[in-house]
Amino acid sequence: MTEAMAEKITPRSQDFSQWYQDIVLNARLADYSPVKGCMVIRPNGYSIWERIQQDLDRRIKKSGARNAYFPLFIPESFLKKEAEHVEGFAPQCAVVTYAGAKDLEEKLVVRPTSETIINSMFAKWIQSYRDLPLMINQWANVVRWEMRTRLFLRTTEFLWQEGHTCHATPDEAEAETRQMLTVYKEFAEEVLAMPVLPGMKSESEKFAGALRTYSIEAMMQDKKALQAGTSHNLASNFAQAFETKFLDSDGKQKLVHQTSWGVSTRLIGGMIMTHSDDKGLVLPPRLAATHVVIVPIMANAEAKPRVLEAADKLAAAIAETPEARKLPYEIGVLVDKDETKQPGWKFFEHEMTGTPIRIEIGPRDLEKSTAVVVRRDIGKKEFISLEAIPAWVSQNLAAMQKELLEKARAFREANTFELPGGTAGYAEFKSKIESGGFFMAAWCQSKDCEAKVKEDTKATIRCLPLDSAYMPISEHGKGCMVCGSTEKTVRTVFARAY
Amino acid sequence: MTEAMAEKITPRSQDFSQWYQDIVLNARLADYSPVKGCMVIRPNGYSIWERIQQDLDRRIKKSGARNAYFPLFIPESFLKKEAEHVEGFAPQCAVVTYAGAKDLEEKLVVRPTSETIINSMFAKWIQSYRDLPLMINQWANVVRWEMRTRLFLRTTEFLWQEGHTCHATPDEAEAETRQMLTVYKEFAEEVLAMPVLPGMKSESEKFAGALRTYSIEAMMQDKKALQAGTSHNLASNFAQAFETKFLDSDGKQKLVHQTSWGVSTRLIGGMIMTHSDDKGLVLPPRLAATHVVIVPIMANAEAKPRVLEAADKLAAAIAETPEARKLPYEIGVLVDKDETKQPGWKFFEHEMTGTPIRIEIGPRDLEKSTAVVVRRDIGKKEFISLEAIPAWVSQNLAAMQKELLEKARAFREANTFELPGGTAGYAEFKSKIESGGFFMAAWCQSKDCEAKVKEDTKATIRCLPLDSAYMPISEHGKGCMVCGSTEKTVRTVFARAY
Repeated sequence: MTEAMAEKITPRSQDFSQWYQDIVLNARLADYSPVKGCMVIRPNGYSIWERIQQDLDRRIKKSGARNAYFPLFIPESFLKKEAEHVEGFAPQCAVVTYAGAKDLEEKLVVRPTSETIINSMFAKWIQSYRDLPLMINQWANVVRWEMRTRLFLRTTEFLWQEGHTCHATPDEAEAETRQMLTVYKEFAEEVLAMPVLPGMKSESEKFAGALRTYSIEAMMQDKKALQAGTSHNLASNFAQAFETKFLDSDGKQKLVHQTSWGVSTRLIGGMIMTHSDDKGLVLPPRLAATHVVIVPIMANAEAKPRVLEAADKLAAAIAETPEARKLPYEIGVLVDKDETKQPGWKFFEHEMTGTPIRIEIGPRDLEKSTAVVVRRDIGKKEFISLEAIPAWVSQNLAAMQKELLEKARAFREANTFELPGGTAGYAEFKSKIESGGFFMAAWCQSKDCEAKVKEDTKATIRCLPLDSAYMPISEHGKGCMVCGSTEKTVRTVFARAY
Repeated sequence: MTEAMAEKITPRSQDFSQWYQDIVLNARLADYSPVKGCMVIRPNGYSIWERIQQDLDRRIKKSGARNAYFPLFIPESFLKKEAEHVEGFAPQCAVVTYAGAKDLEEKLVVRPTSETIINSMFAKWIQSYRDLPLMINQWANVVRWEMRTRLFLRTTEFLWQEGHTCHATPDEAEAETRQMLTVYKEFAEEVLAMPVLPGMKSESEKFAGALRTYSIEAMMQDKKALQAGTSHNLASNFAQAFETKFLDSDGKQKLVHQTSWGVSTRLIGGMIMTHSDDKGLVLPPRLAATHVVIVPIMANAEAKPRVLEAADKLAAAIAETPEARKLPYEIGVLVDKDETKQPGWKFFEHEMTGTPIRIEIGPRDLEKSTAVVVRRDIGKKEFISLEAIPAWVSQNLAAMQKELLEKARAFREANTFELPGGTAGYAEFKSKIESGGFFMAAWCQSKDCEAKVKEDTKATIRCLPLDSAYMPISEHGKGCMVCGSTEKTVRTVFARAY
């Protein structure tokens, strides 16, 4: 049984993509649905999403936004009001053409994003500069018809939050765009333990309708990039289309300046591909519902009551230890008393589903007043005295959260390469891109050079990193890696991406 | 200014329906959207929904269900698998016919409810009796094309939770159906302070596809009934259609027995129509984000710093008093320092939006170390010493929650009438129905008699109440109020309803 389960997961080294799918299905995080491209998020996966929501929602509210809810349906004409926006989204739209047994007069698009429908309301609600800033967030489902889908990473329907804000000046809109990028970065690193690189998107990769798009980019264990969140400065593009105006203090009618920003259930896929291993899911403790599983080893009927009593006592002590109060969550402890399953089966099951700490306790341990503890990310068995376990658990949950981030950051740093300036960089890039990684290169900002890289290597510009510590001017001053031009060169991160 | 705002709300006595709409729009709970029948839930309204979700989610989890998420789209063929189900829902469906710029091979219905898509997954996940009971809940949006809509009460798209459970025996399914009805009743009364009558629906009013539907029925201030939540025993109707089977411990393949249950954003409408008055929203404290507003009266520049300091100190004391720990929420206190608004404007604004307690504090109060306190539901001004205010606030928030329920219950009791048994009851019913209320009557369970009542009076059977304390057998034994038959007569609640 034990062997059979272990075999279910394809090793990463053999087939990364199959490994990922095996984890998602075997940890029962999600499943394929009968609707093409749509997934079912199962309780184990949805529990992670609930924790993401709770934590991020607090951060979003702290930033000044309030939650609201706008219609799922968008009149087709709304989408068409902003030219770039409709061009970007129309090919991906799902469209309702009849309802209530009648053909609709105007077709309704199932929202791929809500800038248009929300602007139609903003235009009604905003009168004066006193109504600004107006900051709204929505937790919702959206639909984008995708040709090639993958559980959590790219699905036809997905869950997300989308923030939409209106400001009196361009500077305030830019500051808000940047601030939310920082909120996302901190959230990804503190909660998902997933290090991300914040930066600006190139023109060709920006949101359809935005002036400027920023993103956070994470590196997966296969060294590919994953765009994990975006924040857009929309300038007055949608405000113009919907006449979202305000009477300023100088008595003049002006268009508002807007932002929008979002993260989605894709984060769950990114978190999995950042931390998990060939035994299953590795879950940062802040995303776990059950932090500790205690597996009682009930060797014989005689020992059973003693072992169960000790397990229950230990569970209570773990939850109640003063050390536990330092954690930003209540420790969830499960004593797995299921007698239809063997301990070995339980070990594998909890490794598969990512329980951060496992404790094994049997009659022989009891004689010595110890138990076996195992941290999911390290996997090493240790004997610890029962008395010391509660504090050990709290300390190790905190340590695991921290070390997962450090490990992922070290992995990213080890796979981030600074290319020499000028076209010498491109030769090196082409020789190395096959084995993956982030490449810091100089780029002249021309679409042709960007397109050539994509054609030659399938790599794309992930971002123009905000942190200028990358790549000294001495190198990037030598010119674009593709064309060698020294005009307008900028530091750029190239990588293959999901 | 003050007068103008007060005039915005039509009195209940003049036009109840207009009053309701005035409250929803002026308290900025919701707004009409450009999409026919769909509303926008504004931050003030969504904040109420968040509190409903938080509390009810805890109760649902305690009952043993776990949250998950299923696709928004349902293949048309799925809906057709259960004959009564498709007959009931097809006329209300919104249908996606093309997506990704192509006509779909199979049309996709935007979920009006999820029994079918969820059963397609249950059939895959359930193998043995060990997998049962399987209890799932989903927080989601659903779409039912409605001809006549009303903010919160009946909208084309609405937000809800839908629970779906599978059991090994019919008894367990019935017990779960009833248990969730009890969960809803307790939730409605404890949190919304809205008394509800639990009962069984008649055949003609039950859910399309269910064996049996139970509901909780509330009485609004216009004495009309509002169905506030439903719980269905689905028997094996959907299991049959989707072959949702399990291998029982006796080695036989059997169909599972199912339930489903839901409440929606309609609850917000019910809560408004239960408690609010001609000055605006009255919000049970458990649904408020801001429980207390302190309005500093800054008569002159000299007094301002002293008054503001006292207000801040009072706010901190209110939040920190030991009495506050007895409440099931943290007290939200706002010191309304906005200097562009007059105190009178603020009083009206906070009455409109339903802040449970208002405190007014000015220089003259400070001299006497007192302040004025006003409870939103009572409206009476009282002078209380600053020292006594923190405890007073906690006590009055608890009292307000309790008294709102008692007041609503007394109103319902005063407007619930027991009709005499036999056709004498019908004469009395017809003479009284115009002025509204719940009518306890005997009914022979025939569809003809039920239809005749609806035709004659526009009243419907709300439920067959579970509480048999209503109407003694001596009366209900005299026969159906419509036809006089003494065969199969049951106690029944008739009322006009939303």
